[in-house]
Amino acid sequence: MVDITLYLDEKCEEVDRFLNAVVPDTKTAPATLHDSMRYSLFAGGKRIRPILAIAAAEAVGKPSRAILPVASSLELIHTYSLIHDDLPSMDNDDYRRGKLTNHKVYGEAMAILAGDALLTLAFDLCSRTDLMDGLTPVLQLQIIRELAQGSGHSGMVGGQVFDIQAENKNIDLATLQTIHTHKTGKLIRASVRMGALVVSATPEQLESLTHYAEDVGLAFQIADDVLNVIGSREELGKDANTDAQRGKKTYPSFHGVEGAKALAEQCAARAISRLESFGSPADPLRELARYITARRK
Amino acid sequence: MVDITLYLDEKCEEVDRFLNAVVPDTKTAPATLHDSMRYSLFAGGKRIRPILAIAAAEAVGKPSRAILPVASSLELIHTYSLIHDDLPSMDNDDYRRGKLTNHKVYGEAMAILAGDALLTLAFDLCSRTDLMDGLTPVLQLQIIRELAQGSGHSGMVGGQVFDIQAENKNIDLATLQTIHTHKTGKLIRASVRMGALVVSATPEQLESLTHYAEDVGLAFQIADDVLNVIGSREELGKDANTDAQRGKKTYPSFHGVEGAKALAEQCAARAISRLESFGSPADPLRELARYITARRK
Repeated sequence: MVDITLYLDEKCEEVDRFLNAVVPDTKTAPATLHDSMRYSLFAGGKRIRPILAIAAAEAVGKPSRAILPVASSLELIHTYSLIHDDLPSMDNDDYRRGKLTNHKVYGEAMAILAGDALLTLAFDLCSRTDLMDGLTPVLQLQIIRELAQGSGHSGMVGGQVFDIQAENKNIDLATLQTIHTHKTGKLIRASVRMGALVVSATPEQLESLTHYAEDVGLAFQIADDVLNVIGSREELGKDANTDAQRGKKTYPSFHGVEGAKALAEQCAARAISRLESFGSPADPLRELARYITARRK
Repeated sequence: MVDITLYLDEKCEEVDRFLNAVVPDTKTAPATLHDSMRYSLFAGGKRIRPILAIAAAEAVGKPSRAILPVASSLELIHTYSLIHDDLPSMDNDDYRRGKLTNHKVYGEAMAILAGDALLTLAFDLCSRTDLMDGLTPVLQLQIIRELAQGSGHSGMVGGQVFDIQAENKNIDLATLQTIHTHKTGKLIRASVRMGALVVSATPEQLESLTHYAEDVGLAFQIADDVLNVIGSREELGKDANTDAQRGKKTYPSFHGVEGAKALAEQCAARAISRLESFGSPADPLRELARYITARRK
């Protein structure tokens, strides 16, 4: 059995330590840019995407030094997307994880540029060869491509556009699913696949893990929607029940809170069923599926 | 002798044809995002950076099919940077190349996302292996890293921050140079180096071409500053003499218009002198140095 709280704490600390070492420091000019990048990067993120990558690599079973840079690049992408999403012309959020959003502290121009710099740094990091012991250059290129496709027009950015276009519209469940498959699903999928590629997963292993990731991604989003309804401001670190106030359609609006909770649990169970052939090295992935579904923040 | 006008037209058309084929079309969802990306990408850019990459590869002398995708990725980065720079919270420009800026047509949220998508697509393109015949994966990784370093916090984005921080300040010439070395210089440097790497330039060739690129980058920026003073609205496709109106320090404010022109010509001459060992295959690079310095728009 894996103690998931301990596991999350340990991996989070490893990722944080690595990010702290590779992200430019505030003694180097332009210091304000680096400060702004670090402000959002070290704002208490749970590092779910890097940890999914690490756990996927562990499930395949061969340890690799290259996993930390690859996993950490996912957090750079995730952080940039939060900074840009919070901007006044996007979601116009003042708080994130209980702290002022990037543009509230550094201004809009710097927030846009910090996002651009974090996005670019993710690819800078993934293209380094000095940190990628044991990773073939061909696999490394494939990992970079996964990252680009999970986060660009065909992935996360595309999902953000779908989301904007659905605002104040009476969308159906299929449209809601398209939004989430792109907005959060594709990067979670990329996280698991990138982790698996680092340790040269076989095509069969990669396929099972991809299915796992798709199920977990859906569970993640449903749980997020449920939390937005039932979570308290204190637990979320931002305003609660904002979706309903914004007239935004969510899984609870289609299935009710209890129905949505049950659906998230089904997704998690299906994700776990994909891991049968991996045995105990996949225990962290199994616990992650449960954690993501049951989390309170 | 190279007819530079003809050369620019031919290469521009090649790059445009390639970009048109690899950038997502407007029949695929989310169509508005792809439309917004294409609006700025095909707004009449001169493709200086891709053409510098192509000409650098020609100077080294071995033709390669991989040059077009690598060169085109530079235009994706350049275009994203223009979209984000024009935003209300940045330069707040309504016109670019005689057309409304991206956010004036598609709104701020879509402009930010189109920029993010173009930036990500540049790395997506550079990590493709199906388009890179004859390029070793190790060189391809090095090319991706050049692109990231030329455009990220240590390059273009960093330069943009230096520029913002200098607004309404009485900066000295050294600070002006720091701004431009980063804001435009580093990506021009990356353009030439990426082109040279595609055709496996020797370390000596790469060094000479890097010096060429640094000189050309400086000539480019000085010429840009001169044009901002003496160019007409019609030629520039945007308002003229905006730098002075914004109280912005430029090369003409330090050296006068004639002094700045002379300085740009000196930089171009020095750039050309770096190419001695390359012979006639470097003629396009020589003509490009002259063109960049003498251009009227």
